[in-house]
Amino acid sequence: MKYSLNKVLVIGLGLIGGSFAKALKKRHLVDEVSGYDLNSAECELGLQLGVIDKQVTSLLDAVAEADLVMLAVPVKAMEQLLEAIAPALRPDTLVTDAGSTKMNIIAAAQRVFPTIPATFVPGHPIAGAEKSGVTAANADLFVRHKVILTPVPETDPLAVSLVAELWQSLGAEVLQMEPHRHDEVLAATSHLPHLLAFSLVDTLAHEEEKKDIFRYAAGGFRDFTRIAASDPVMWHDICQANRDALLDQIDQFTMGLSRLRQAIDTEDSQTLLGIFTRARIAREYFSTLLTGTAYELSSTPPSVETPNLGVDKPGE
Amino acid sequence: MKYSLNKVLVIGLGLIGGSFAKALKKRHLVDEVSGYDLNSAECELGLQLGVIDKQVTSLLDAVAEADLVMLAVPVKAMEQLLEAIAPALRPDTLVTDAGSTKMNIIAAAQRVFPTIPATFVPGHPIAGAEKSGVTAANADLFVRHKVILTPVPETDPLAVSLVAELWQSLGAEVLQMEPHRHDEVLAATSHLPHLLAFSLVDTLAHEEEKKDIFRYAAGGFRDFTRIAASDPVMWHDICQANRDALLDQIDQFTMGLSRLRQAIDTEDSQTLLGIFTRARIAREYFSTLLTGTAYELSSTPPSVETPNLGVDKPGE
Repeated sequence: MKYSLNKVLVIGLGLIGGSFAKALKKRHLVDEVSGYDLNSAECELGLQLGVIDKQVTSLLDAVAEADLVMLAVPVKAMEQLLEAIAPALRPDTLVTDAGSTKMNIIAAAQRVFPTIPATFVPGHPIAGAEKSGVTAANADLFVRHKVILTPVPETDPLAVSLVAELWQSLGAEVLQMEPHRHDEVLAATSHLPHLLAFSLVDTLAHEEEKKDIFRYAAGGFRDFTRIAASDPVMWHDICQANRDALLDQIDQFTMGLSRLRQAIDTEDSQTLLGIFTRARIAREYFSTLLTGTAYELSSTPPSVETPNLGVDKPGE
Repeated sequence: MKYSLNKVLVIGLGLIGGSFAKALKKRHLVDEVSGYDLNSAECELGLQLGVIDKQVTSLLDAVAEADLVMLAVPVKAMEQLLEAIAPALRPDTLVTDAGSTKMNIIAAAQRVFPTIPATFVPGHPIAGAEKSGVTAANADLFVRHKVILTPVPETDPLAVSLVAELWQSLGAEVLQMEPHRHDEVLAATSHLPHLLAFSLVDTLAHEEEKKDIFRYAAGGFRDFTRIAASDPVMWHDICQANRDALLDQIDQFTMGLSRLRQAIDTEDSQTLLGIFTRARIAREYFSTLLTGTAYELSSTPPSVETPNLGVDKPGE
């Protein structure tokens, strides 16, 4: 299959969709970036702000003309959107998305299409969350941010390469991962921490006598409450979209916390110091990942070494 | 009882002790600030850096001469220190401390003294943790930070007022609290969040196959690992010093997390949205506390309103 990348259509002009459009325009990477949003006022604003070149009124016509369609709508809306655009997709129309969970979007595509199109490249740019709406669109949002692509067996490797190169042109670091692994990783590193923060703040706020506790909150707690400021509806949707991976992560965390509780209860100094030291070492390793040269930009998955974290084997 | 505040002795020249000494000197609040540290090199450095006026070699002589003694040593060392200085304390020697838990220090004082001296004002400045040592001493460390005083029934109210005024002169906001309440509040707002962070990072780092997960860590996780970078030994000691309050907080948190897990498992949207929304409202309330005019500086305990957080009653 031969692909072109002249006309890009972005569906959903929120922070991610808007930033993707604006980033393409700023770098003159394609001939035309058109935009569609259920909220036409948002779309008009995007046009005025120069986020897009063209405001689309007929979704199907726009899809039929597009070389690449970016689906940047909430995860829950993906299936309906795929159904709506399916009839207008050409065999060479690249389709990618920005949904924060992947298994459920792939399942939606399996329900919508007899076979998932070879041009479908599921993706997840890990960026932004604090702001929302097209006015927050930022042409450099993806610079030095990770984009995870999760192609399925049906996906054409050339389509993956083209989408990866496009993201790289926007400054992103592109990784490839199995969809299932993506959801597991996100559950562990993003969804679970957010849920713990929500749960902690809610637990404290839940009891009348405890409300004044917020007065005394020190450093550790501030970091938690900052995390807990995220949008409730978005997190509700994530809990549903990534349910299985999340339940698994919660269970593992609960077991870990139970080990820690046991060590406090029995004044088991060795276990306590073991937990705290391993966590600090892991944190130091993590810092080097964040500040170091990181890995090469590449459309192929980076080699995933399992560096020695200085952690002990389970069961010790 | 009549008190003077001419000579202050700071025992333990870490970040807190050193900053207390330096802050007093910078503001010329007392005639002389002397310092004692088991590590005499640290003490000498304090003298060279102008953190203290005088390096003490005989602890007992220095205590006998001091009008106020600040105990700024690790919580675990407090009992031994109290035993060591007890013989040299005059009836009008003010004694205060900077320990991060209070019940166990008061228990230590009860073991050391036949009756806790009326001049003993247990305290806890909530400041600093990232840096350590006398070189990190900062004369403005306590400005706009909270200091919680937890007098016992034996404590002379005049002694409390003097210690409170001294902290206020250093820019701190002084609160009073029951010792038991202090430990509970700190367990909830500082110790528990730190333990959750340690536990999360350790749980992830614990399994061989999961190490590469750190590569993909997004925002929420970064905040957690930052918290988990604290000193393992300090947190080990806190876990022992505040054991009971911490176990209680862990149990409450675990119950809250279990409610959340249940809601995810059963796709109970109402409960999910309830938890996330309450958490966000509590967070917003907390933000106003941090950025607002807060309460008046005062040596008397501020009135603790229980503002409407918009939270629902338990059991809903």
